[in-house]
Amino acid sequence: MLTVLPVARAQDEIIRSLHIRPVRVESVFLDHAPGRVTAGDIFAPEMLPPFPRSTMDGFAVCSADTFGASEELPALLLLKGNILMGKEPPDAIGSGEAMSIPTGGMLPAGSDSVVMVEHCELLGNSVAVFRAVTPLENTIQPGDDFKKGDLLFSAGHRIRPQDAGILAAQGFLSVEVAARPRVVIFSTGDEVIPPGEQPGPGQVRDVNGLMLAAQVRENGGEATYAGIIPDCKDALREALEQALEEADLVIVSGGSSVGTRDVAIDAINALPGEGVLFHGVAMRPGKPLLYGMSKGKPVFGLSGNPVSAMFGFILFVKPVLRLMCGLPPFAPFAPAVEAFLATNISSPGGREDYVRVSLQYEPREKQGEKAVRARPVFGGPGLLQTVVLGDGYFVVPRDVEGLPEGSRVKVFLF
Amino acid sequence: MLTVLPVARAQDEIIRSLHIRPVRVESVFLDHAPGRVTAGDIFAPEMLPPFPRSTMDGFAVCSADTFGASEELPALLLLKGNILMGKEPPDAIGSGEAMSIPTGGMLPAGSDSVVMVEHCELLGNSVAVFRAVTPLENTIQPGDDFKKGDLLFSAGHRIRPQDAGILAAQGFLSVEVAARPRVVIFSTGDEVIPPGEQPGPGQVRDVNGLMLAAQVRENGGEATYAGIIPDCKDALREALEQALEEADLVIVSGGSSVGTRDVAIDAINALPGEGVLFHGVAMRPGKPLLYGMSKGKPVFGLSGNPVSAMFGFILFVKPVLRLMCGLPPFAPFAPAVEAFLATNISSPGGREDYVRVSLQYEPREKQGEKAVRARPVFGGPGLLQTVVLGDGYFVVPRDVEGLPEGSRVKVFLF
Repeated sequence: MLTVLPVARAQDEIIRSLHIRPVRVESVFLDHAPGRVTAGDIFAPEMLPPFPRSTMDGFAVCSADTFGASEELPALLLLKGNILMGKEPPDAIGSGEAMSIPTGGMLPAGSDSVVMVEHCELLGNSVAVFRAVTPLENTIQPGDDFKKGDLLFSAGHRIRPQDAGILAAQGFLSVEVAARPRVVIFSTGDEVIPPGEQPGPGQVRDVNGLMLAAQVRENGGEATYAGIIPDCKDALREALEQALEEADLVIVSGGSSVGTRDVAIDAINALPGEGVLFHGVAMRPGKPLLYGMSKGKPVFGLSGNPVSAMFGFILFVKPVLRLMCGLPPFAPFAPAVEAFLATNISSPGGREDYVRVSLQYEPREKQGEKAVRARPVFGGPGLLQTVVLGDGYFVVPRDVEGLPEGSRVKVFLF
Repeated sequence: MLTVLPVARAQDEIIRSLHIRPVRVESVFLDHAPGRVTAGDIFAPEMLPPFPRSTMDGFAVCSADTFGASEELPALLLLKGNILMGKEPPDAIGSGEAMSIPTGGMLPAGSDSVVMVEHCELLGNSVAVFRAVTPLENTIQPGDDFKKGDLLFSAGHRIRPQDAGILAAQGFLSVEVAARPRVVIFSTGDEVIPPGEQPGPGQVRDVNGLMLAAQVRENGGEATYAGIIPDCKDALREALEQALEEADLVIVSGGSSVGTRDVAIDAINALPGEGVLFHGVAMRPGKPLLYGMSKGKPVFGLSGNPVSAMFGFILFVKPVLRLMCGLPPFAPFAPAVEAFLATNISSPGGREDYVRVSLQYEPREKQGEKAVRARPVFGGPGLLQTVVLGDGYFVVPRDVEGLPEGSRVKVFLF
């Protein structure tokens, strides 16, 4: 009997079943940090910038000396020297004095602002200042960007290029991140042969192994494709048990027929530990999802049908990988392409429908609000063409049985 | 003098200056193909599926034998055998005969459809069929997914997990893809020191080298961070010339002060070939962009300011990398988060403004249309905090001088 759960309920059961997140912590050099996830909070060890800097080419001054300065009545200051990039200023300045300073240069003691070079004129040993500056004008003060002790990143933050940049600025050479979860992938099915072989009558090459490994890598995991297991409970149980010694998560795909599905259920139930937690989710494609655990480690049984397996991964395995990487299970803000349906569609109702679409721009004369059109890629549920020719998908909720042409949909790109 | 181009005009000049796309072609195993870009059109060498398959557990029949069958008056067929997964059917069937078949099994010659097991009953050596099937019902025919000779992918297609899957199904072990463009990155500036060192007065650690390398890798390039060059024309020219021997593209960042910018211009103009093509783009942040070429290879001079350098990369270097990877310069459909401005903003006008924002959900009671709020992260243009604390950015066009609170904006995530 297939217990069929709504998608959100199944996701919730899976998330609640997990204990350890992230799985392990490791230290990586900053160069390899982008894309990884912080394992703990990171605080700024230093002031940034560490010293008062000029944001303009010009002259460091005491702002009070420039009050009232104008084109007609410039303030005349004594040029006390030049500040070089990367060097300490040669001296401090006092009232009535100025020092030339480049953008990014260090302000001399006694100065509190910079007059832009465009508003000054050099007259021998003096600088004529034709415009007043306010205190701090054209400067950045120590800690203006980040103060010592500021929280730079909370645990669970995916490091972006600029984040690696700020860590470099703060003197980090390496950073503690969540280790990549280790995922082992099996395919099952007596009809399935390795991609490199020539299929005989009734045989097909394995699609899912390679596809799921790519999905795992895209989502921060380390994927090992461990080959094809025959449709036999003992062989599968043994393969799973061995994989679980090292893996953090195991995916088996295959078994769209009732008999094979039973083999997977029996094999997972024969593992030490929790066994099968549920099977069957109210969605299209992807209904025959199987979820179980062995000693706290999740085991997924995805459909042998590649399209179902692909959506099973997106909806159920991906949140687990994210948690194991130290991220929240779902991205808080998922970018999408807003599009308008090119045709009416009907939907089965009672289960979530993941409609694969191709996108195209409207002809110029019709552009405006309805710029991008989403056209469903039809084809049987078993056909790869729906995801290969499609650009992405949108979701029809369980309680909606159809949408009219022109409906606004949020398309998530593959 | 700074010739300031509008963003789109600068992008256009850059794109038109490039000749070779993609830079090189290489063959990679399918395992490493996801994320890479097809170097040529790829056609299906085989029918997929290669044989007629059942999409259900049931009995392969001649559909004509079932016409008129009902619960009251089932069609009685002779069970001629069982089809096993991955095997050729033991025999053909004729009129009045049936064979049991699993989902994915190969249909026997003579059959044209499958009756679901739920609509049949085994009676000794016979099968009672309680429902009629139409020709081809519950089957996939050879080529239904892809026919031999069908275009699978055009040149310039980024290979996704399911695309690797279809290539595996079609017997490909490797695929021709665009080689990763080789990018060499320099930082300049007498005040800049390597990230591992302790800054003295007036010195700052290099941020841009690491950040730009991460951006290059994120966009399909091979990045080499080649260190910090002093502010000196000859040193820079020599470093550039040496880098250009192997690199497809060189990025120099640094030189926000007038003097340093001139050094970069002089160094690029001193290289063999085209020299500086333009400098200065009407945008904020990122105005002092420098673009040149040496013997057909692009050289970018980005601002020393990390935020400007980051946006210079996104707007100008990324399209070049995409072209070198064999992709169109801009993604045809860029996913975004639709959000609503949390405050009024004013914009300088006359240049494009890239406003960094943090995103948050509205409190529950106000949810509905205005679910996501975008709040500008203010801070001087030189401050990393605007991109480190920000989730993404939206664009204020050149001819717009401000937007009121509540305006709908498209936020592109960092």
